[in-house]
Amino acid sequence: MLILFVSAKIMAELAERLNQPGIVGEIIAGILIGPSVLGWLAPNEFLTAMSELGAMFLLFRVGLEVKSSELMRVGGTALLVASSGVIVPFVMGAAILLLWGAKPNESIFVGASLVATSVGITAQVLSAKGLLEEISSKVILAAAVIDDVLGLLVLAVVSSLTRGKLDVLQLSLTALLAAGFTVVVGHWGSHAMRRVTPRIHRTLRATEARFVLALSLLFLLAVLAVSVGVAAIVGAFLAGLALAESTEQRERDLAQGVSEFLVPFFLAGIGLRVDLSAFARPSTAILAIVLLAAAIVSKFIGCGLGALGLGRREALRIGVGMIPRGEVGMIVAQIGLSFGVLSGSSYSVVVFMSVATTLLAPPLLKIAYRSLLESRNQQLENEVLRLG
Amino acid sequence: MLILFVSAKIMAELAERLNQPGIVGEIIAGILIGPSVLGWLAPNEFLTAMSELGAMFLLFRVGLEVKSSELMRVGGTALLVASSGVIVPFVMGAAILLLWGAKPNESIFVGASLVATSVGITAQVLSAKGLLEEISSKVILAAAVIDDVLGLLVLAVVSSLTRGKLDVLQLSLTALLAAGFTVVVGHWGSHAMRRVTPRIHRTLRATEARFVLALSLLFLLAVLAVSVGVAAIVGAFLAGLALAESTEQRERDLAQGVSEFLVPFFLAGIGLRVDLSAFARPSTAILAIVLLAAAIVSKFIGCGLGALGLGRREALRIGVGMIPRGEVGMIVAQIGLSFGVLSGSSYSVVVFMSVATTLLAPPLLKIAYRSLLESRNQQLENEVLRLG
Repeated sequence: MLILFVSAKIMAELAERLNQPGIVGEIIAGILIGPSVLGWLAPNEFLTAMSELGAMFLLFRVGLEVKSSELMRVGGTALLVASSGVIVPFVMGAAILLLWGAKPNESIFVGASLVATSVGITAQVLSAKGLLEEISSKVILAAAVIDDVLGLLVLAVVSSLTRGKLDVLQLSLTALLAAGFTVVVGHWGSHAMRRVTPRIHRTLRATEARFVLALSLLFLLAVLAVSVGVAAIVGAFLAGLALAESTEQRERDLAQGVSEFLVPFFLAGIGLRVDLSAFARPSTAILAIVLLAAAIVSKFIGCGLGALGLGRREALRIGVGMIPRGEVGMIVAQIGLSFGVLSGSSYSVVVFMSVATTLLAPPLLKIAYRSLLESRNQQLENEVLRLG
Repeated sequence: MLILFVSAKIMAELAERLNQPGIVGEIIAGILIGPSVLGWLAPNEFLTAMSELGAMFLLFRVGLEVKSSELMRVGGTALLVASSGVIVPFVMGAAILLLWGAKPNESIFVGASLVATSVGITAQVLSAKGLLEEISSKVILAAAVIDDVLGLLVLAVVSSLTRGKLDVLQLSLTALLAAGFTVVVGHWGSHAMRRVTPRIHRTLRATEARFVLALSLLFLLAVLAVSVGVAAIVGAFLAGLALAESTEQRERDLAQGVSEFLVPFFLAGIGLRVDLSAFARPSTAILAIVLLAAAIVSKFIGCGLGALGLGRREALRIGVGMIPRGEVGMIVAQIGLSFGVLSGSSYSVVVFMSVATTLLAPPLLKIAYRSLLESRNQQLENEVLRLG
């Protein structure tokens, strides 16, 4: 734990000095101390659990900063962004593998692994730069939640297809349950919490009761999310969203403490899972680079097209923000491996794609938002000049 | 995790309503959901690690509230309290087991398990009631740290004796290393941090860098403490102590968030390890009750005697504050079991003693400090009357 936490933070500091986002440093720290390079640490049960908790608290804290009513307002655009951002990568990924000579089953599984965006990284960058209020940020967050539900469906369909039986009724039920949970909690959660929390708080005697309640809701929704089939982090995000309007600064600070402690485990944990030895074979290395390029281009085009209604600049930001695949791509690859559908080298290729998109997103985001951040600084300087 | 966290907090609320400290409720929640009663959860690797982290953050936060110079000032009394609080329980525990007919080796191991105080529970009660500034609280904290070093020595001697080889040189080295680490960090840590931290902070660019540094020191000292043989929580406490004078409210809030999240795992984790089925045999049940009584009386008398110089009332408070054995007694019992020195039933008896002393300490502390808390309330009321 000492090794992981301290090296993640040292690399974060290094990254900041090289004018790169700190989280890139933390992921690279994971690769460095992981089995491929220094071999100091390997992913184990405890680190994996800490990493999941880190992702949950990250999304919980982001949810706390966002008003659900505002997410709902961009719902239409987000649905469009998420849908075309699912179709384009899936088709492109599957096509590349087919052209490469892989079996159809393997190809559609790799396609499925390109589908789901991991919003944690983007959310962290946007939150650190104070950009969560931007309309593009809200579209990204809403689209990522929808994308997770769609990704679940694609995974369910692909898993059924590769096993040779497609139960449409079962699939529709899964879809309905996942979508229903998300919509109900997203839509009414905030309303319910605004009504319920003051009452509960009046009757509770324990210290820090508000924070304890917030954590309980976080765990509860994460468990519910997993049980209806979506990711635990979607539940965590919805819990944050539901509490956003009834939470005070004190709880935000306490949640911030937990996430400062846990998030390095999430970021370095992503790096830990990279196995560089698979790329000794040139053909695997080439496939990895081709698939990485496809992952970036397809998501950028798919999501950007969906967001064109907001203007070219916003569409570009949204396209970039949806690129990272993070742990979600790895989970799909893991399932494919366990089904015997993915070969060891395709598995490594997907993991590489997931980590590389995650590493590339923060610097790309910085470029995409540069004009906005610069004009903000300019405004601040003008203000200072005017006052001075 | 949901089950553990929520049930711990529900029981804490119940306990508060019955006018008992909340932490008693959290430990009982662990017993209830554990293997003995409902069987919903059993201690596993992840929960154990979370429980250790919880204890570390608890002691870290307590350390942050205490000035090390003030602990040093009560060092003499604390040394006396710790020493007589080690000798009396050891002798009493070993004597009872011998009279009961146990083998000499088993007897001295049980005696050793009565030695070390687990200061977490007492620290939590004192901190929650705002009593950390009291002289008795400082003696308790300082004595608990010394007690941990002495407990380590007793365990080392007992382990060597039962294995039939007593390497005096090795033992002295262990003792010297452990005591040296504690004294050096306790004495110079705070001074060093006051000098070093402002410089580091000026050069760091990352967000929340102060908190990250604090966490790094916490992990570092915990690892060092374990490597010289003392408990990780002693390292955590020393880290808090070293940072107490150079830390701002922001870091305290963030640390508070982490400990609110983790401490329930520590408390309920203690409860989880209780196995009530061993007490179906009446002779084991009787031994458990006799040993529990001895554990309470011996620590109370031993520590109280050592603190008589501060007056009877303070001595009483210190005696009560040193009673809980918590996880430390359990660790000794675990080692005894793994050496084949302790029988299964003596192991259960020691675990029961550890949990029961931990459960009894908070209400006893409340009684011991009642007059002080009442006079404080009286003062506040007078103030209000005078101002009104």
